[in-house]
Amino acid sequence: MSKQNRIIIIGGSACGPKAAARARRCDQHAMITMVEQGERLSVATCGLPYYVSGVIESRDELLQRHPDFFRDVLDIDVLTRTTATFINREAHTVELVSLDTNKTSIMEYDKLVLSTGSTPATPPLQGRDLKGIFTLTKIEDADAIRSVLAQRKSKKATIIGAGLIGQEMAETLVALGLEVTIIELFDRVLPALLDFEISAYLEKHLKANGVNLLLNQRVTGFNGDNDGWVNKVVMESGQVETNMVLLALGARPNTTLAQKCGLIIGPTRGIAVNEYLQTSDPDIYAGGDCIENMNLITKQKMLAALGSIANKHGRVIGSNVAGGRETFPGILGTAIAKVFEYNVARVGLNESQAREAGYDVVTSLVPGYEHATYYPHGKEILVKLIAEKSTGKLLGGQVIGPGETGKRVDVLVTALTFGATVDDLANLDLAYAPPFNNALDPLHNAANVIRNKLSGYARSLPPMEVHDKIQGEDKFTLLDVRSPDEWQETRIAATQAGLIPLRELRSRLNELDRAVEIVTLCHSSVRAYQAQRILDGAGFHDVKFMDGSIATWPYEISSTEAESAQGV
Amino acid sequence: MSKQNRIIIIGGSACGPKAAARARRCDQHAMITMVEQGERLSVATCGLPYYVSGVIESRDELLQRHPDFFRDVLDIDVLTRTTATFINREAHTVELVSLDTNKTSIMEYDKLVLSTGSTPATPPLQGRDLKGIFTLTKIEDADAIRSVLAQRKSKKATIIGAGLIGQEMAETLVALGLEVTIIELFDRVLPALLDFEISAYLEKHLKANGVNLLLNQRVTGFNGDNDGWVNKVVMESGQVETNMVLLALGARPNTTLAQKCGLIIGPTRGIAVNEYLQTSDPDIYAGGDCIENMNLITKQKMLAALGSIANKHGRVIGSNVAGGRETFPGILGTAIAKVFEYNVARVGLNESQAREAGYDVVTSLVPGYEHATYYPHGKEILVKLIAEKSTGKLLGGQVIGPGETGKRVDVLVTALTFGATVDDLANLDLAYAPPFNNALDPLHNAANVIRNKLSGYARSLPPMEVHDKIQGEDKFTLLDVRSPDEWQETRIAATQAGLIPLRELRSRLNELDRAVEIVTLCHSSVRAYQAQRILDGAGFHDVKFMDGSIATWPYEISSTEAESAQGV
Repeated sequence: MSKQNRIIIIGGSACGPKAAARARRCDQHAMITMVEQGERLSVATCGLPYYVSGVIESRDELLQRHPDFFRDVLDIDVLTRTTATFINREAHTVELVSLDTNKTSIMEYDKLVLSTGSTPATPPLQGRDLKGIFTLTKIEDADAIRSVLAQRKSKKATIIGAGLIGQEMAETLVALGLEVTIIELFDRVLPALLDFEISAYLEKHLKANGVNLLLNQRVTGFNGDNDGWVNKVVMESGQVETNMVLLALGARPNTTLAQKCGLIIGPTRGIAVNEYLQTSDPDIYAGGDCIENMNLITKQKMLAALGSIANKHGRVIGSNVAGGRETFPGILGTAIAKVFEYNVARVGLNESQAREAGYDVVTSLVPGYEHATYYPHGKEILVKLIAEKSTGKLLGGQVIGPGETGKRVDVLVTALTFGATVDDLANLDLAYAPPFNNALDPLHNAANVIRNKLSGYARSLPPMEVHDKIQGEDKFTLLDVRSPDEWQETRIAATQAGLIPLRELRSRLNELDRAVEIVTLCHSSVRAYQAQRILDGAGFHDVKFMDGSIATWPYEISSTEAESAQGV
Repeated sequence: MSKQNRIIIIGGSACGPKAAARARRCDQHAMITMVEQGERLSVATCGLPYYVSGVIESRDELLQRHPDFFRDVLDIDVLTRTTATFINREAHTVELVSLDTNKTSIMEYDKLVLSTGSTPATPPLQGRDLKGIFTLTKIEDADAIRSVLAQRKSKKATIIGAGLIGQEMAETLVALGLEVTIIELFDRVLPALLDFEISAYLEKHLKANGVNLLLNQRVTGFNGDNDGWVNKVVMESGQVETNMVLLALGARPNTTLAQKCGLIIGPTRGIAVNEYLQTSDPDIYAGGDCIENMNLITKQKMLAALGSIANKHGRVIGSNVAGGRETFPGILGTAIAKVFEYNVARVGLNESQAREAGYDVVTSLVPGYEHATYYPHGKEILVKLIAEKSTGKLLGGQVIGPGETGKRVDVLVTALTFGATVDDLANLDLAYAPPFNNALDPLHNAANVIRNKLSGYARSLPPMEVHDKIQGEDKFTLLDVRSPDEWQETRIAATQAGLIPLRELRSRLNELDRAVEIVTLCHSSVRAYQAQRILDGAGFHDVKFMDGSIATWPYEISSTEAESAQGV
């Protein structure tokens, strides 16, 4: 009989417990030890915003596994409140210190797993140590926020950073009755994930829910009251009064232990691993937030602090430390969040990322509905697709709106994984019945818009360029082809704008100046594209439609006075 | 300038109008004529069950496009109430007859499109012409059903055929207050789509909603009352009283016109087309319900009467009759339906179809939740996957339950389109946040179960085989590893059944007979698999777990007396 395999796993959040359980199922005889600094294992930290809000009522629901379970069922030794302080790679030992007794022990391993997680990024801002300034990655953080909000009856909350946690917590804090301000360094919310016009669509929703957005603002520090509680956020250009602050500036991989023993750290500052999730030491594996992943599109390394990815890492590592040879292919930068009534999802490269990566891109921006428009209660979604111009290969997508977006992004995830083109996407045999979808899914439509552009039938301008044109000097016609009723109700204010309903276009061509550029628009761009084709056919030489039209216009929009008075 | 392209499109439901509009956008100068027997174009027939139920309030919502739209916007000539009676392929002419004036005309074409749709299958049953016997494919059918139900205050409805329309209409008729009976020739509902255990899961839900199911029953005819209204459905083995009958026996392609002019009809009885959707005559294209499609998995031809597919056909045909060279790759047999509170979805081959097609298959049957269990209101879904044993290549999937299934089936659609394996599926970077998913999607889990089987870690028996074993003579142990509370609440009644909670298993191994086969089970199979691995590790040689366990047991289940009394 072969020697018993000794496996030590450092970190008990998501990747660690998964690796431990998988290793046990693959090897019934290994000696498996899991080491965790905290008291608890497998805490569902992704649920913390919902625990703070009370949507998740009990913290017990977030505690997924008790150490006893690992002992009784999986025969795994769990050392909680224990920290690993040093790895001696040559001797194959780990130095452990008990946080309760302060005792040091040395433990031998054959295979070691680092699943040390990440820590919230907290830049050294002045006043950082004032009371009432939080991060949110542990259940203790959530308890502290809940207790401060309850005891101090806080009225104003400031979230620094408009990333995913910032967005989720904006909803939570508004739900708890606070006045919420989000301060973001970049020019838009979710700047690492969304393109400008998609962020703009979300920003309107945030504002409609009472969130105060301060974009393009650098925070320099905090002021406090005499009791040491934060009462102001100081920015380069102004101050915001506040009763509490949430720092939501992303996560940094915990790599100290790996660095100390000389493992290679990648350019992203995550632990470098190969496809088997082996570090530069073949007997040491690493997974979860602390490693860098390969982006399947760019083949570049990237960080990702997500339970979904950590769990997949865990399975691969569990198999491999037990003698297997499983691979982890990489990730796509998928993200989804519920932000008030909107579902925000994205995958792959956004347009700016794709351009930065050197792609010549073609995009579509297509408003649609989650299911058949004639089936009740269908809600709007907005799809943006990005593809490579020369090949039609999909590079990424963003789907946002009150309607269902998770399905669409997961279809895109799957399509991107296999290098799908817009032709592939357009012909996917997606499931259709009126309660679930349209005969053509919004993704089909979005793919077809790109196909129309690639084949030369469709020519468009993004809303940002149309906005510039409206402000600019060059003569052009902004031709709205909606119905007079729609025009009356809401329209883009521009001296260049005029209305010819699509139905009348063929008979009113003489009203248009053939000498100037024409940009057509409607509600969703379907009619605008049709109008472009009619004008093409009538010999107009410089016609484009506006991507997304009124439904996605990221700027102010004019409504009739009556409606403005009603505050619509 | 080239000669004007004359395009005639026969049929104005889904494929036809799409082809017409697309052809116009591709060719602004073609002469396009669309011919339709009925009065209306682009009727959303998929919405009919919801119009009958009143969920869709007005029939106008189902009328998507008025002929004027085609004339004014698309410059397309529409001839409604006109039927095409003959195609002279040599002369490139179509003979048309006006249903109002009975006048015949001859029209020349360069390219012809057949989108003649399908007709409900109505076998020549005795009494078929009695009043109160309906099919449902036109808006007139829906109006007739609504009016009969209202005027005659019908109490009992019988649906013949447990296909998709039959299922949707069961919900509709129950909602309208009728006692509904479904009669099906085969041994299960949705027999062409689902495997036995998935149908069984749905059947429990149908019964819970008051639907009377008569399976394995052949209908021979109908009896009527003195006024000529149907009052009985006659089967080979008995009769059912009824006030109305819906024949829901599927659709047959309308191919008379194609056959008369000698176009090739395929083995499925649909019009044969190539990848460009050209018939055996290169100037005649066909799409929608009347053609046969290629199944992307088996590469065999199959019929599909779905608006989603017809619309995709329409775009390809519209491009090609305008001089393009677009292809339609094929379909996957995707289907989805809302059946009361369940969402039923499937794609690819089910297990029986895969076996019939000669595949050596491996399957998984995995109950799960639509999103994180700690996030409120998560509903159950059940995933069955079918893969090829030698390669791990996915062949199909079925997803059913009160929770979200459309997303999962669309991910499978996309994965199957690209020939994904279970390894690919298991590592898809699907979108994760607690309101949308679990860290691992039920599809990930289902893929991993198959991977565990392929790698030899997991061994299982489907519930049907366990059921046979329970009835059989061979000695075996049905080892339930749930908690005593769960066992108390509900369990599979079998003399071979016994309980050892998973937590106690390692310390109670001596209670098990090593000489007999052991089948473990729990609620969802997670613990049952774990138990199998523990027993494997302890040297037991014949241990399997039951696929799906209690959550998917397709047979009767024992509850405690107290609960039975409460009718739970």
